[in-house]
Amino acid sequence: MLKTFALTVAYDGTRYAGWQIQPNGLAIQQVLSEAIGRVVGHEVQVRGSGRTDAGVHAIGQVCAFSSSVWQPPASRLVRAINTHLPRDISVVDSRAVVEGFDPIRRATRKRYRYRFRTSRVPDPLNNAFHWWIPRRLDHEAMRLGAARLVGTHDFKAFESLGSRRITSVRTVYTSEVCVHEVMAGREITLEIEANGFLYNMVRNIAGALVAIGRGRFAPEWLDGVLGSRARNIESQTAPARGLCLMNVDYPQELFVTDQTEG
Amino acid sequence: MLKTFALTVAYDGTRYAGWQIQPNGLAIQQVLSEAIGRVVGHEVQVRGSGRTDAGVHAIGQVCAFSSSVWQPPASRLVRAINTHLPRDISVVDSRAVVEGFDPIRRATRKRYRYRFRTSRVPDPLNNAFHWWIPRRLDHEAMRLGAARLVGTHDFKAFESLGSRRITSVRTVYTSEVCVHEVMAGREITLEIEANGFLYNMVRNIAGALVAIGRGRFAPEWLDGVLGSRARNIESQTAPARGLCLMNVDYPQELFVTDQTEG
Repeated sequence: MLKTFALTVAYDGTRYAGWQIQPNGLAIQQVLSEAIGRVVGHEVQVRGSGRTDAGVHAIGQVCAFSSSVWQPPASRLVRAINTHLPRDISVVDSRAVVEGFDPIRRATRKRYRYRFRTSRVPDPLNNAFHWWIPRRLDHEAMRLGAARLVGTHDFKAFESLGSRRITSVRTVYTSEVCVHEVMAGREITLEIEANGFLYNMVRNIAGALVAIGRGRFAPEWLDGVLGSRARNIESQTAPARGLCLMNVDYPQELFVTDQTEG
Repeated sequence: MLKTFALTVAYDGTRYAGWQIQPNGLAIQQVLSEAIGRVVGHEVQVRGSGRTDAGVHAIGQVCAFSSSVWQPPASRLVRAINTHLPRDISVVDSRAVVEGFDPIRRATRKRYRYRFRTSRVPDPLNNAFHWWIPRRLDHEAMRLGAARLVGTHDFKAFESLGSRRITSVRTVYTSEVCVHEVMAGREITLEIEANGFLYNMVRNIAGALVAIGRGRFAPEWLDGVLGSRARNIESQTAPARGLCLMNVDYPQELFVTDQTEG
């Protein structure tokens, strides 16, 4: 019997060429496929909820594969696959899902976090996980800017070239900026949840918020950027290292009760 | 005029062969010496407050060097040296100190943190910074064990071979275990402060606390281990990756007012 499994996966993206298998560089999808293949005893095709770029991290990426050979409970896959993974990738959870489960199209919500560090000196212990900006940012202005993105908008202004989506309209449910004190400065985080994201959308939004934090633009500037429906070139794309895919949601009915589960 | 400077340095030790310059592998001391040399315009000898082993991290390592060429304020060294450092090492602070300042002998207190992670699954985003133990530990027993180390004791039982110290008596001021919830488990930290540490002392203590957390020994077992004054071989040396040098204290009178400082 063919069974389909959804895995929740965490990774430090630093040394990978991104999620998707490609000719140059090692992809997370490839490392996972090989580890799963060893566990189930045959080649598998692993489909992710979306690509993450080189250097982008994940705590809650979701991917799926099918097997007619693996019969033990889905939950047993976690430890079994982790045995074959390097220490910068790990399977956090495994659940049985309906046949034909499509992790891209069936995703209802995704949540990302972008971390900025504003401090006099760089913090080498978190270097791979944030964008270091050696000056003060007006985080209140950033917070006001982020809040303006909530709702249903055409986000074309924040889409990088190289993607082909039918529509660039997305609904942002949460877009919040938080601040806390750290060694010699502050960590500022953007937490953003939407029904989907365009290519580089979070990194382009993060770059726009930094332009606001630097005082180059007022928070209201974002309204015009959104309204323009043209790629915003007045601020930069934030570096990959600060981005982390936190969570992907699916409708509850796609998860099936694994009959073999104790 | 010969001036001596004390730098506070932070580093991710993952890709280094430790603090001390050695024939095999890149040492943090070497990378720092070269960066400082470029800034002051001549070769410098950089002395650290103590060696950290390969894979051990620091937030507050202290090292010193002298120059008769560098005349700007000490504080200017921070940004200047960081320009020449890789992103996993950074200078956090710089102060002028008395001539002949000896960062090893004049240290009055050092503080280390050791991080354990007990969770079903490994956490790849913190993998380089903790010891992952995939089972529950009795952190209350660990806390009681850690507390028994406070005071002046002969810590020979927790000294690894390869060091030559005149005395193995040290005074531990703080030895505390803290716990907080993290993804799919708990992070347990040991915070330990003493007037000095023997070779591998914190890692050997961390290993002993894990043996207690696993229920192999009661907290009182540590009294016998300490009393034996013989190398404890009933528990392991904890891996380097979990260890971080947090802080080194010096008497206030060793810091001099830099006349050139604004």
